[in-house]
Amino acid sequence: MNSMVSVDTKLIGLLGYPLKQTFAPRMFNETFRKLGMDWFYFPIEVQPDDLGTVVKAIRCMNFAGFFVTKPNKIRILEHLDELDELAERTGSVNTVTSNGGRLRGYNTDGTGFVQALAEETGLDLGRSTFLVFGAGGASRALCFALASRGAKKLYVIDRLDEASEALARDLNGRLRQCAQAVPFAGAPVGDLVGESDVLVNASGVGMYPHTDETPVDRRHLRKGLLVCDLTYNPPRTRLLLDARQAGCRIMNGVGMAVHQGAQGFALLTGRPEPTRIMRQAMRRITT
Amino acid sequence: MNSMVSVDTKLIGLLGYPLKQTFAPRMFNETFRKLGMDWFYFPIEVQPDDLGTVVKAIRCMNFAGFFVTKPNKIRILEHLDELDELAERTGSVNTVTSNGGRLRGYNTDGTGFVQALAEETGLDLGRSTFLVFGAGGASRALCFALASRGAKKLYVIDRLDEASEALARDLNGRLRQCAQAVPFAGAPVGDLVGESDVLVNASGVGMYPHTDETPVDRRHLRKGLLVCDLTYNPPRTRLLLDARQAGCRIMNGVGMAVHQGAQGFALLTGRPEPTRIMRQAMRRITT
Repeated sequence: MNSMVSVDTKLIGLLGYPLKQTFAPRMFNETFRKLGMDWFYFPIEVQPDDLGTVVKAIRCMNFAGFFVTKPNKIRILEHLDELDELAERTGSVNTVTSNGGRLRGYNTDGTGFVQALAEETGLDLGRSTFLVFGAGGASRALCFALASRGAKKLYVIDRLDEASEALARDLNGRLRQCAQAVPFAGAPVGDLVGESDVLVNASGVGMYPHTDETPVDRRHLRKGLLVCDLTYNPPRTRLLLDARQAGCRIMNGVGMAVHQGAQGFALLTGRPEPTRIMRQAMRRITT
Repeated sequence: MNSMVSVDTKLIGLLGYPLKQTFAPRMFNETFRKLGMDWFYFPIEVQPDDLGTVVKAIRCMNFAGFFVTKPNKIRILEHLDELDELAERTGSVNTVTSNGGRLRGYNTDGTGFVQALAEETGLDLGRSTFLVFGAGGASRALCFALASRGAKKLYVIDRLDEASEALARDLNGRLRQCAQAVPFAGAPVGDLVGESDVLVNASGVGMYPHTDETPVDRRHLRKGLLVCDLTYNPPRTRLLLDARQAGCRIMNGVGMAVHQGAQGFALLTGRPEPTRIMRQAMRRITT
């Protein structure tokens, strides 16, 4: 416990629900300590209906800003004063800076994911077809990032067909014709996986504590496929364990969390991205 | 910095303005650490107009409750659901418990002061006349506590005559005829000090950073007088330095802060008062 917390301590919140599974507070607080910064990051469990109440209070407290996660990444928009261009286009926010109570939203999910993907796999986006599970805030961000970097084709599937349809429509309309929504009921998952080079789980299925769930039956997985899961808790989800056994290449959410965290840190503190420090912290935390 | 803060960490806030001078977060956080408790206490600078906003958010966050200090001890009442009997009578609250978002106000200022006074001076209240500077929340609480334990006579003086008059009226009406308000302009301070056994500074005058201010000209001080200052930062205010030089007995706000903190701790956590641990922490902090 930091007994030295004072009125000068800059606060950062993480607004989501549930937050039991998050490692972000440890990653950030270890980074602040390492850099000798009087900042404090803490999780605030809050659901969409209470977002307005909490955000109003944050405006009059000593917050430098806050991060936003499931299920608030889209609903937060109505409580902000300004949006960064990328956040506006994707319609989803995961980082908010507060300047004298003026709130500006950003999204680093997509860029964080693409950075991790390039680093860990060296994938050629222009030659890759993606099958993306989930069409919520994180999925929107990474689909926009993938599409704008030239991904060949994106299939999107969500248990809410309206969500996947809206995302495909927005991608095709605002960027370029490259996306297709797949209706959830009776989706030909086997065929779609067969046509895809990369499978991305952005649905949260399989995340702690529901660690035996997976969005894809293991019999559809095959050697040569790249399987990504945005989750980092557990570091090996059911999906990734199945994929590894089927001979797929795999990537979990640790790299994305590090890049996205480092970008968020830079936005809130005005300092360089502490990528190396955050990576070390995440390694300690997840192993 | 506690990197281990999680969604289970119980939060406690201190709502006041300014809070630069407060030692309470250190006293509490050192106590939590010593007792191995996953609790975190932090200062929230907030003025009366924003109280409602902050309290609303506290209701939907993981707060076990909060403490209230200048200038919010009276204005907080309108935002609570219930009042403890003593808080209701004094019309001032410094401790609030939150049970599932239901807020109940208490006041431990008066009992904390009387406990410290008994311990440090062994004063016979029934034979003592008090001159009290300040008629705000803390003063109301300690005057009610002194009057209900049989103090012979209380003179109250405040730069707002309405405040001292209201306090004297409430004491005389709700407890017993023992109080008298002294108009601020042209008050016969010398005569009043001459008639008093104990001088209490509950006005905040002389508190950090205004450390060269004092509510009483030093020429009025005399040997045999007991001079109390509710401030603990600095531990020796201008008033206490003058008093010591004039041969008075003196008492600062450390003992009161410890007792009041220990009582507040017990109310919020349901555990015994950690008086010894808090006293040690305050000794480390103030010396």
